[in-house]
Amino acid sequence: MAKKKEKPVILITNDDDITSKGIRSLVEAVKDLGTVVVVAPDRPQSGMGHAITIGSPLRMNRMNLFGDVEAWQTSGTPVDCVKLAVDKILHRKPDLCLSGINHGANHSINVIYSGTMSAAMEAAIEGIPSIGFSLLDYSYDADFTASKEVVRKIVTQVLQQKSEKHLLLNVNIPALPPEKIKGIKICKQAYAKYEEDFSERLDPHGKKYYWLTGEFKNFDKGKDTDVWALEHNYVSVVPVQFDLTNYALKKQMEKSNLFK
Amino acid sequence: MAKKKEKPVILITNDDDITSKGIRSLVEAVKDLGTVVVVAPDRPQSGMGHAITIGSPLRMNRMNLFGDVEAWQTSGTPVDCVKLAVDKILHRKPDLCLSGINHGANHSINVIYSGTMSAAMEAAIEGIPSIGFSLLDYSYDADFTASKEVVRKIVTQVLQQKSEKHLLLNVNIPALPPEKIKGIKICKQAYAKYEEDFSERLDPHGKKYYWLTGEFKNFDKGKDTDVWALEHNYVSVVPVQFDLTNYALKKQMEKSNLFK
Repeated sequence: MAKKKEKPVILITNDDDITSKGIRSLVEAVKDLGTVVVVAPDRPQSGMGHAITIGSPLRMNRMNLFGDVEAWQTSGTPVDCVKLAVDKILHRKPDLCLSGINHGANHSINVIYSGTMSAAMEAAIEGIPSIGFSLLDYSYDADFTASKEVVRKIVTQVLQQKSEKHLLLNVNIPALPPEKIKGIKICKQAYAKYEEDFSERLDPHGKKYYWLTGEFKNFDKGKDTDVWALEHNYVSVVPVQFDLTNYALKKQMEKSNLFK
Repeated sequence: MAKKKEKPVILITNDDDITSKGIRSLVEAVKDLGTVVVVAPDRPQSGMGHAITIGSPLRMNRMNLFGDVEAWQTSGTPVDCVKLAVDKILHRKPDLCLSGINHGANHSINVIYSGTMSAAMEAAIEGIPSIGFSLLDYSYDADFTASKEVVRKIVTQVLQQKSEKHLLLNVNIPALPPEKIKGIKICKQAYAKYEEDFSERLDPHGKKYYWLTGEFKNFDKGKDTDVWALEHNYVSVVPVQFDLTNYALKKQMEKSNLFK
């Protein structure tokens, strides 16, 4: 008798927190595609980037949140969650790591600040194919109907292929009903960023404090970028790497004999 | 009469905190090369990656720490420091941003977790040429004698050229006396990482908690990497980029008609 093919183990995490609608939607979208285990932060961790917890110990608690899907909350960052999942919960590398669905965009430069994408990147560094999903809607009760369809389509295809072990995809989904989404585009990361400003205020004792604010600006006019795709009602998929070497500049610097 | 050339404005930050020996050594190494302004965290922020503070307000205080060099401490992350410096202290982009000198290595994959390098990257995203410096010695009272020479040499050369505005360099310095350092090598980021483990302990109430630990492992046998250079007593300089698009994988995915 042929050996029954084992179901893939799928690790799910996020940065919004384990009770968010986004992670629940992600679990619902893929739970019949493998053995799903959720390991996610116990409180919001947006904007945490690739932070890890080195100065304090971490806690984990088993949670009863997703029916028969095993779930743990941790006191750590999204990156800590991936590390804890592999070493202390699964005791192995999962076959796939999914992060999100984030409440809010992680396109363009956001990939660098995003806890959602940092968790996915951590998995990719470990050699676990990994995908971060984000919906362009920050609201608490955002509508993930279309997102769930997109997730299912992408995850099914990635599981069907023999994926590159460092596969890392940044998927952003426009906040539209399913029938309005035109398709999925493979893109590059746009050079777009926030023009920061700080709101300066006075505390009751007359001392200044500052709130970070900012306006998003796209400086990249290309039609091959994630920002362009999203503005034109496509889902954007950016393949991401963690080798940050700027090879073009490296070549140029080697030629110039700089620092000799 | 010829117009006197204005001195470049050099912003200095770090992730260890504003009182560390590393940032003091960096200030001493370059203070006569331009108008130096220090904006750095008020407490250790190692491993903060590209974290930004969005859920709480920030404080800044003018400090009297570096003689006639203007200095501010902030309650924010290294990335927050750069944003505050540009918007609220300098009210302009500095000509150069220097981050460090970090107490401890930031070669290979550490670039992703490092607050030192994230501050430098934030500046580069803003279009400010930027360099992060790290010494391979974690100790509080590390010897920065050789590091100061290296910093001076690199900063002098970068200031002499018309630098690319997104210039971003990750410089790591071996913990050796000046005469033992063989030179400066332009390198790529090694594929090296930490094999994590968690130390599991019981609190006084019998509940488990976990400390992140890990062993550094280099999987990259190339002689063109930062890890190789450092092991052979060279200073490593890796040119870094913040476009994380994996163009090779993008091309491959476009060919395969994935997600169509």
